[in-house]
Amino acid sequence: MLTPLRYARGCLTLIDQRRLPAEEIWVDYTDLEAVAVSIEEMVVRGAPAIGCTAAFGLVLDAAQSGDETWGAYRKRFESACDRLARTRPTAVNLFFAIDAVKACAAGFANNEPMANVAQRIERCAQALFEDDLATCKSIGDHGAAMSKPGQRLRVLTHCNAGALATAGYGTALGVIRSLAAMGRLEEVFVDETRPWWQGARLTAFEMRYEKIKHTLIADSVAAVLMQKGLVDWVVVGADRIAANGDTANKVGTYSLAVAAAHHGVKFFIAAPRSTFDLSILNGSQIPIELRAQTEVTHFKGQPIAPLGTEAYNPSFDVTPAKLISGFITERGVVQPPF
Amino acid sequence: MLTPLRYARGCLTLIDQRRLPAEEIWVDYTDLEAVAVSIEEMVVRGAPAIGCTAAFGLVLDAAQSGDETWGAYRKRFESACDRLARTRPTAVNLFFAIDAVKACAAGFANNEPMANVAQRIERCAQALFEDDLATCKSIGDHGAAMSKPGQRLRVLTHCNAGALATAGYGTALGVIRSLAAMGRLEEVFVDETRPWWQGARLTAFEMRYEKIKHTLIADSVAAVLMQKGLVDWVVVGADRIAANGDTANKVGTYSLAVAAAHHGVKFFIAAPRSTFDLSILNGSQIPIELRAQTEVTHFKGQPIAPLGTEAYNPSFDVTPAKLISGFITERGVVQPPF
Repeated sequence: MLTPLRYARGCLTLIDQRRLPAEEIWVDYTDLEAVAVSIEEMVVRGAPAIGCTAAFGLVLDAAQSGDETWGAYRKRFESACDRLARTRPTAVNLFFAIDAVKACAAGFANNEPMANVAQRIERCAQALFEDDLATCKSIGDHGAAMSKPGQRLRVLTHCNAGALATAGYGTALGVIRSLAAMGRLEEVFVDETRPWWQGARLTAFEMRYEKIKHTLIADSVAAVLMQKGLVDWVVVGADRIAANGDTANKVGTYSLAVAAAHHGVKFFIAAPRSTFDLSILNGSQIPIELRAQTEVTHFKGQPIAPLGTEAYNPSFDVTPAKLISGFITERGVVQPPF
Repeated sequence: MLTPLRYARGCLTLIDQRRLPAEEIWVDYTDLEAVAVSIEEMVVRGAPAIGCTAAFGLVLDAAQSGDETWGAYRKRFESACDRLARTRPTAVNLFFAIDAVKACAAGFANNEPMANVAQRIERCAQALFEDDLATCKSIGDHGAAMSKPGQRLRVLTHCNAGALATAGYGTALGVIRSLAAMGRLEEVFVDETRPWWQGARLTAFEMRYEKIKHTLIADSVAAVLMQKGLVDWVVVGADRIAANGDTANKVGTYSLAVAAAHHGVKFFIAAPRSTFDLSILNGSQIPIELRAQTEVTHFKGQPIAPLGTEAYNPSFDVTPAKLISGFITERGVVQPPF
């Protein structure tokens, strides 16, 4: 099974997604700070995968604490949670995973031996991982169930909401995998997803891995395909969904949603329920990460634009609920009105 | 003055736009076939610049013919025209320029000495170049004249419809230059323009050259800027405009037009009248060039996507007239209904 992370006996192993598809390099992590940096530097990315990685980061920290009891470790645990929470601001799954581990730990007495604490945190992280996998499979099946017998859908996706962005199977690509398994998928159009190329590098890699017919396009070609009537569904993931349905996802999602609405193409968000942040009323309150200008101005260290060119590089954008045809979750598809 | 081509005494010199902005390399051309290849391989690009280059290609060919008379040269002239016409199918300015030189030559008797013919063709090409320059200046001024006193406009542009795409000054960037000269320009947003990076490489280069404040964005960020109310006008060039106003331009233009319509942002096409092809009723009849898949899958020879990934790479798209707020031409601005 394609997965971006593996955990076994005190060691978290991540596939370095920055080097895909050219090289499949697995890197071992044994301490919290290195895990935090791996999230910041996008060794691992994708909202659910970041959540799982953070949980295993807490497992590593607890296992290595050297403290005798929960009481002795507690402060360090809290600062470990804070460190992970600072890595990336937009994906809510990160905070969901940290909170889940915190909830596991909340019941301990101060004199609880650390061996027990570490074991409990490990079980909690493993459960999050297993849950995410089952959730993705369920999302995929619920999404695919909207298709009709005999249909052969042409699905366009943006970024990588795939196995590599989750524990495995994927959210948007989970829907695509389930459609393919049912024989109801004609073709996938893969937005290259500037500036970080998640589509060209990761989604194309996954589609190739699954032997699913796919065509790579520059992001701006998506509207042209819709104009030609070649797209039945757009399916993308999400990093955070506000209470009113406004959805933050990889930058470029909003442009797709506008084009889909213009052409009457169905536009679906595939995401676990943990992506919904009911504490936030609408999209304007979702913090949007700005990343380095060099992601836009350079390619692998080579300048594309004149040196000194200023770039605006928001990593995400917010699609208003009114442009969304439905949310595909592990419990079923929620369609408007929400 | 910034120009992509210079001609003097039997030699056409082109700046190699594939190597901008890293290197400013001027290459001399002295024969027709090399000029045709320079157009195909995008040493020179931009509809009006391609037209001027083709005209000078015919000048070079006539100067070198070795024939005594027009009658002896005529067949070779016709095949030279055909060779140039096959270089790129979408931009109509190419055919306009070839036809203009053909019209110059049409009056010759068979016994006209080639020296006279060559001189006449040279004058014709030079007149096309000078006309294009004057046309661009006029387009710029007509476009800028739509602004109001006290306005400081934020203009978004796609691809490079600049000095480098014309004899000089540019069409869309001509409007921007004229706005800047009037003190009515706040900022330019430059779409990077995948897959060939005309925005990142060429438009950013021109804006830097003119010391005009500009910000580079991934193409899919344009809709986000409109959503935030940061764009007053979108101004782009054109490669061919059908009789009904449907407009072929660099791929990505259509996506921008859809986003502009959604947000109520003005969307202007800046183009000389030679870009209008009244022989074509609507956009569906405009031939759209498909370019190599490797433009999408690779960067300077390095693969981005998995090897063997299929890509769809149309070089242009067609924006229907109903999404266009107005055409800025050298005679003034034409607004709908057309």
